[in-house]
Amino acid sequence: MDNNNSSNGNGKKEFLPASKKVYVKGKLFDDVKVPFRDIELTKTHLPDGSIEVNEPVRVYDTSGLWGDDKADCNVEEGLPAIRSKWINDRNDVEEVFGREVKPEDNGYTDPIHEEWARKKDTGLLKAFPGLKRKTLRAKPGMNVSQMHYARKGIITPEMEYIAIRENLGREQAMEMGLKNRFMANKMNWQHKGMSWGANLPDIITPEFVMKEVAEGRAIIPSNINHPETEPMIIGRNFLVKINANIGNSAVASSIEEEVEKMRWATKWGTDTVMDLSTGKNIHATREWIIRNSPVPIGTVPIYQALEKVSGKAEELTWEMYRDTLIEQAEQGVDYFTIHAGVLLRYVPLTANRSCGIVSRGGSILAKWCLAHHKENFLYTHFREICEIMKAYDVAFSLGDGLRPGAIADANDEAQFAELQTLGELTKIAWEEDVQVMIEGPGHIPMHMIKENMDLELQQCYDAPFYTLGPLTTDIAPGYDHITSAIGAAMIGWYGCAMLCYVTPKEHLGLPNKKDVKDGVIAYKIAAHAADLAKGHPGAQVRDNAISKARFEFRWEDQFNIGLDPDTAREFHDETLPMEGSKLSHFCSMCGPHFCSMKITEDVRKYAKEHGLTEEAAIEVGMEERSEEFIKKGAEIYVK
Amino acid sequence: MDNNNSSNGNGKKEFLPASKKVYVKGKLFDDVKVPFRDIELTKTHLPDGSIEVNEPVRVYDTSGLWGDDKADCNVEEGLPAIRSKWINDRNDVEEVFGREVKPEDNGYTDPIHEEWARKKDTGLLKAFPGLKRKTLRAKPGMNVSQMHYARKGIITPEMEYIAIRENLGREQAMEMGLKNRFMANKMNWQHKGMSWGANLPDIITPEFVMKEVAEGRAIIPSNINHPETEPMIIGRNFLVKINANIGNSAVASSIEEEVEKMRWATKWGTDTVMDLSTGKNIHATREWIIRNSPVPIGTVPIYQALEKVSGKAEELTWEMYRDTLIEQAEQGVDYFTIHAGVLLRYVPLTANRSCGIVSRGGSILAKWCLAHHKENFLYTHFREICEIMKAYDVAFSLGDGLRPGAIADANDEAQFAELQTLGELTKIAWEEDVQVMIEGPGHIPMHMIKENMDLELQQCYDAPFYTLGPLTTDIAPGYDHITSAIGAAMIGWYGCAMLCYVTPKEHLGLPNKKDVKDGVIAYKIAAHAADLAKGHPGAQVRDNAISKARFEFRWEDQFNIGLDPDTAREFHDETLPMEGSKLSHFCSMCGPHFCSMKITEDVRKYAKEHGLTEEAAIEVGMEERSEEFIKKGAEIYVK
Repeated sequence: MDNNNSSNGNGKKEFLPASKKVYVKGKLFDDVKVPFRDIELTKTHLPDGSIEVNEPVRVYDTSGLWGDDKADCNVEEGLPAIRSKWINDRNDVEEVFGREVKPEDNGYTDPIHEEWARKKDTGLLKAFPGLKRKTLRAKPGMNVSQMHYARKGIITPEMEYIAIRENLGREQAMEMGLKNRFMANKMNWQHKGMSWGANLPDIITPEFVMKEVAEGRAIIPSNINHPETEPMIIGRNFLVKINANIGNSAVASSIEEEVEKMRWATKWGTDTVMDLSTGKNIHATREWIIRNSPVPIGTVPIYQALEKVSGKAEELTWEMYRDTLIEQAEQGVDYFTIHAGVLLRYVPLTANRSCGIVSRGGSILAKWCLAHHKENFLYTHFREICEIMKAYDVAFSLGDGLRPGAIADANDEAQFAELQTLGELTKIAWEEDVQVMIEGPGHIPMHMIKENMDLELQQCYDAPFYTLGPLTTDIAPGYDHITSAIGAAMIGWYGCAMLCYVTPKEHLGLPNKKDVKDGVIAYKIAAHAADLAKGHPGAQVRDNAISKARFEFRWEDQFNIGLDPDTAREFHDETLPMEGSKLSHFCSMCGPHFCSMKITEDVRKYAKEHGLTEEAAIEVGMEERSEEFIKKGAEIYVK
Repeated sequence: MDNNNSSNGNGKKEFLPASKKVYVKGKLFDDVKVPFRDIELTKTHLPDGSIEVNEPVRVYDTSGLWGDDKADCNVEEGLPAIRSKWINDRNDVEEVFGREVKPEDNGYTDPIHEEWARKKDTGLLKAFPGLKRKTLRAKPGMNVSQMHYARKGIITPEMEYIAIRENLGREQAMEMGLKNRFMANKMNWQHKGMSWGANLPDIITPEFVMKEVAEGRAIIPSNINHPETEPMIIGRNFLVKINANIGNSAVASSIEEEVEKMRWATKWGTDTVMDLSTGKNIHATREWIIRNSPVPIGTVPIYQALEKVSGKAEELTWEMYRDTLIEQAEQGVDYFTIHAGVLLRYVPLTANRSCGIVSRGGSILAKWCLAHHKENFLYTHFREICEIMKAYDVAFSLGDGLRPGAIADANDEAQFAELQTLGELTKIAWEEDVQVMIEGPGHIPMHMIKENMDLELQQCYDAPFYTLGPLTTDIAPGYDHITSAIGAAMIGWYGCAMLCYVTPKEHLGLPNKKDVKDGVIAYKIAAHAADLAKGHPGAQVRDNAISKARFEFRWEDQFNIGLDPDTAREFHDETLPMEGSKLSHFCSMCGPHFCSMKITEDVRKYAKEHGLTEEAAIEVGMEERSEEFIKKGAEIYVK
């Protein structure tokens, strides 16, 4: 594995073109430095010969230091712990001797496993070498969750960081008078009166962040043992976020690949990463990922717990699961998917489904419940789980273990019964000031999507919704990033806070790097389309910039402002490979003499020269029409 | 070029796997033979050892004889003229000596062009060799449009063909008692009460087709000079259709490629093809395409007209344009995009737009209007155009020349002013019994899509809507098949009748074969998602079949029922390449011991063995809960 910056695996540095990482300092907290990516643009050559400067486009950036060409970092050391001081300054944590790593944490349930692993050792199975600091935990009786602070009226550095980040630099731009650059499109949206987002504040303040977190409408996943994370927020009154799942499995993949997939996914813009590893080396893989991740990491702890009992669901115990939660919380996992809503009495509701239970976690727990004839131990021990969550600030992602896996099963009794229980659990978590989001489906036809969003908000008291897609049809294996991007964009518009990506390999195999990128880009599209439709202030700035570049034949700018400059450039080069053609004033589609954009430019020029106002045009038009109307009756087509 | 069947360009036949072309005969007309593709499925091995037969899945098929492994046809002869007898039997057409092909029809406006072309001749610039029949035209005073027949209460063979086709074989299946196979999901949809399609008839009848066409809500593009076409319908009360654009340009591409692209696009399911060629050889390219196309062909005649005046918009004349319409109508073009709504007085409304006029046709006409200071000649000569349309049954696709080319320009004055004029023109066309559909945008954020659909229905009197996307954001060049599939699925649900695809190359270059396929698949997804959401009876059969196959680990069936079996199989093979793994009862994602589907199967088995009814489960569950509730207070997590 290459240790330098964002790499293509061959040691070649790969930064996004024409981009400069910039940092905006906080006003409340001096060491808050919020990263953005500024995309530098070329100048516009106006038809009259004058030059117009195009200000850089400032975009949200999730790549961390891996995406900063001036940063010096490597995977053996991990990222700097930017939040450590903030965490320590709060005086509510203590260093502990963390739980010791056991062989079964890496799935070595038999001595033969370890021997085998040692033989195959690539040097990455050793403990992560760069971690010098001790494990943290809340002092006895303390609660270190961002929700707890918010409810006490405390604005944390994390909250200021997020406020600045969500504004995409708009507050600074306004102060500096960069009107074109960050002109809000809010007036337009309000005028059109169709977007519920019109009620969002013009500028997100740290106070607004605090209020949203305090009231449970948003979460800040930020384990005190993951101080490397750059704070971000998940809530419907903020930019729509996306998650990318990675993870090895018994069948394929290696640690190196998974760490590289994490960096790759954040390069293209994923806001969080879930490590869904199964099989061997789960603990080691996760350690490497967390130490190098600038974004929050989520997991489904039951997957690791199941490995510890060699895949036998019925052998799972609360004690062992609890131990796994602590293991992962100490490593720094920021949110846990916990399927505490799969109740014994809901299981038979799935028996006549077309596709039964498709959630792995859900089916493991269903099996356990039936095997023991007992209620789900995650439900019965839920308050104890809350105690762990608040000691490290791990957020709940309450899993939808009974989500539909086919259009035929959408919005059924089992699904909505579980949702109601998730609402009940949300209230319990909030009693403990533990942050909560709610996971959602799955496979849902378009006309049934809104019901999901509405019911979630109603039954889970406005807790953020986090959905997988939803996939709007079952018939396109190989293209489920598309079937689901449709549903994801819609539910994002309706108010879903985070969209869990689906890759083209869904239902077929494990995603490779290309699939991860395809999934992330499809979901960046869905999230951004949702931000536009919600009327998020400032979201349209990037659309406006790329459209201006397109209209003015600034090809390089069009590529660079886009979500994937490499692919855009490559596609353009397929038709017109010469370097000069990227400067030419015609599109590759139509050739030099037949381009609508060129003609439009002529139209504008003509209109200006002839002083053709709208009124004058109407007058002329009417004259013409009346002349023609008279003639019309007489002229009949005869060949 | 390979002349045999559907080929990959190397002479290798490429039929979709496990598929059999079947033909359903008409009851009213003996020679109506409606093609479907039956996807053969493997048997299910039930846990109890018994076998369940899975009936084939019958799907709509657009590939024509090229997709029939028993058919013998080649591109030099073209497809058989299946509609010829029907057309002749109506006794309203006459054979004419068609207009002679002129050099400028192929863009040879200078003798040097022809010389150049002759040198580069590939053997395809010669007149199409296989056409033995004469050109047809309506007898003087006659109208040969399907709308004209419909309004006289005549059910044509085309109408019966369409009725059978739209039912996906459901009427036969019902008669034969194949309940699983074509069980309508209508009851479910009605129960859920969310889909306007719940009012659609259970079975589409020829009478229903006739009524929809008579009232203008649907069109049957079917030029009497394109008897090779397999009748299809475009209307909101039918399956949502898609269109694929192909076409050479001055910069790239050849005739061979374009013909192959047409066959390729129909293989993957496009319902119509638009030939948007510019540059040289337009006439010859189109002839080869039409003679080999089983689907209706649309064009934008102004493109060819512009070539005839060497790209100088201001030199266009009505006479030359009319001659071009006749040229194309005689070749068999089924629908014309005509930008008759770009009025002189609307042009200044675009001057302050972010992206001006992006429609090629729209900008050409805007330029013409301004150059001459006159009203658009397509508008002033609209009734004469109607005379041509009804003499061949060419349908109008009234072009949206002022559609927005950027999110910033969506739903603006210019766009909606033109829409109103298109409504006015619709009424005029209907006075002449000429079929009409209305083209729509473009770049529209999600929350503004519905307004487009609603206004179109209102202002154009329920004429079918035919939209390009719409693209829901501007920021993803290279991925506009996805940005637009989102908008396309939504507007399809809202009632749009046909979705014009967008390929990944949009804004960047000309689509190659891969791009055409990617665009078609993305739009098949959008159209099908819309059919599900509309509640089209029978649409969900395919989803149900693939989900059943998925649940039962029938991997081959899952691949084959999908929209793209090749890609699905390839993706699966990347993770588990061995042939045996396609028979194994676990997914490639999770490995043999950790699969949710496997666990669900166990759950069902267990539930059955233990006689666990829902009520029993609830009882047990409640007991468990009360026990736990008592314990809960006392147990606090202490590490």
